[in-house]
Amino acid sequence: MKKKLAVVAFGGNALLRAGQKGTIEEQETNVHDTCNNLTALIEQDYNIVIGHGNGPQVGNILLRNIAGHKMFDLPLMPLDICGAYSQGFIGYIIEQQMRNVLESKKMKRDILTLVTQVLVDKHDKAFQNPTKPIGPYYTKEELEALKKENPDDVYAEDPKGRGFRKVVASPNPVEILNKNSIEKLARDGNIVITVGGGGIPAFYVKPGEMQGIDAVIDKDLASSMLATQINADEFYVLTDVPKVFINFNKPNQQALDVITVADAKKHLDDGQFTEGSMAPKIRAAIQFIERGGKKCVITESKELGKDNVGTQIVAK
Amino acid sequence: MKKKLAVVAFGGNALLRAGQKGTIEEQETNVHDTCNNLTALIEQDYNIVIGHGNGPQVGNILLRNIAGHKMFDLPLMPLDICGAYSQGFIGYIIEQQMRNVLESKKMKRDILTLVTQVLVDKHDKAFQNPTKPIGPYYTKEELEALKKENPDDVYAEDPKGRGFRKVVASPNPVEILNKNSIEKLARDGNIVITVGGGGIPAFYVKPGEMQGIDAVIDKDLASSMLATQINADEFYVLTDVPKVFINFNKPNQQALDVITVADAKKHLDDGQFTEGSMAPKIRAAIQFIERGGKKCVITESKELGKDNVGTQIVAK
Repeated sequence: MKKKLAVVAFGGNALLRAGQKGTIEEQETNVHDTCNNLTALIEQDYNIVIGHGNGPQVGNILLRNIAGHKMFDLPLMPLDICGAYSQGFIGYIIEQQMRNVLESKKMKRDILTLVTQVLVDKHDKAFQNPTKPIGPYYTKEELEALKKENPDDVYAEDPKGRGFRKVVASPNPVEILNKNSIEKLARDGNIVITVGGGGIPAFYVKPGEMQGIDAVIDKDLASSMLATQINADEFYVLTDVPKVFINFNKPNQQALDVITVADAKKHLDDGQFTEGSMAPKIRAAIQFIERGGKKCVITESKELGKDNVGTQIVAK
Repeated sequence: MKKKLAVVAFGGNALLRAGQKGTIEEQETNVHDTCNNLTALIEQDYNIVIGHGNGPQVGNILLRNIAGHKMFDLPLMPLDICGAYSQGFIGYIIEQQMRNVLESKKMKRDILTLVTQVLVDKHDKAFQNPTKPIGPYYTKEELEALKKENPDDVYAEDPKGRGFRKVVASPNPVEILNKNSIEKLARDGNIVITVGGGGIPAFYVKPGEMQGIDAVIDKDLASSMLATQINADEFYVLTDVPKVFINFNKPNQQALDVITVADAKKHLDDGQFTEGSMAPKIRAAIQFIERGGKKCVITESKELGKDNVGTQIVAK
């Protein structure tokens, strides 16, 4: 029987937990735990492709970039390059820990980390309205100087009053480059790590000529598109709660077991899910199912392998 | 007929040329040229795997690392992580430019960039005698402070009097991780980019548990080992001269067309080749042939596709 193919999107806490500083040791330990939990799916005979975020990591890379420019006059690297750095770094950690976990369990698979570009549409309306804050906070005075230096950049005031930050577009993923190779590698039994940080956004400047662009693709939407484009049977979105809740933290709080796309859309419209947290995961789930996926599961990694795991989003 | 499989090691000037500052635009243009020249091999129906260096790039990453630590109190990333950064970054640029070159020539192949670890032996004698300088130069006063902060690190005085630098071991590559997948991907017609910067050195702390290590694997030796382990027919080492010379810059200077391994060893022993430049390429060539490879060619990329290209190193 053909093995089932699952895309698993690692959440931010698979790498770094609240209050941690971002040392390598912290990240290795967190990743090791998540990889260990992931073996539950491998034991159930799934083929696996892993997607992951890069928020705090690319934030630190941007700061190092600025510091290197100021202290050593090094060229500033654009955001696509910083994203590529983060894919190398995080992919390496996940691959190494996954390898160690599998070796300890006498499971033998190749684990391949792909530096991955994701095609976006230069006419995506997100480019008219950049909203995704990146990099450090600036004071009003710093902002004036920055605007002169980089007249094309857009900055926005932080709603919590911490200053101003550069904002970039968050376009939709259109095509995961190398998707056919990714599917083939995974169906051959290899574990593939890809679309790190939502993938490096690239677009066609003109036919036949691609170029990276200052933008950030939502990692859950990128993993969802990946799951669709490699014909995955199931899509797992890992987070830090066992199930999705409605009326979260209220007396009538309720954990959801199985919901339809229609239910999910209604809860979204009702504002049940926090933007920047559960809402994008729900949207990613809806997109996967609407594009023909069978099942999406939102849960935390330690639940994997249990019966009735997480919140399932299904067509109907 | 089965296509021939070639490993092509990009030299430093494929990325950055003398006097350049290291901007992305410079590196993209240089890489584009090299990729364009590489299509001569693809037109001759080779399957291709690309290895590359990371010297100047990882140098800048180390500086940004130090600057980020000093300015923003960010954790210092160890050398294996900096190598992983550089693989993501350089691999992304090569993949994107190679894709653009192939699209412009209506050639269709997937191009995959793998973040690649290379197994080293913790008993490699290189670890007893670290010689590879990395990162910035320090004054004697800075050195004393550093030694207190990092008592396990080793520093050496620069022979040209520019100060002191950290030195790390340069162990031999033992195994290219994922070598079977790399061979399969390449033989399926994909172009694979791997062993960037010689690969991320990793070793077994104990059976079943791998870990990265503060070391640098010579990129030519890593590409040579890759060529052996994926059963490549030919190994191309790209540099900035069309052929290898003996008596270089002397009245009796002579370009070499075809030499045997025995010739190559004799010239090496005679001190004909500069350490840190042609000598490691010759050693990488010798190793590939001695391990059963058919042909190694040392040349510059624009020579590819010509008759009687470069200097060929053969068994006898």
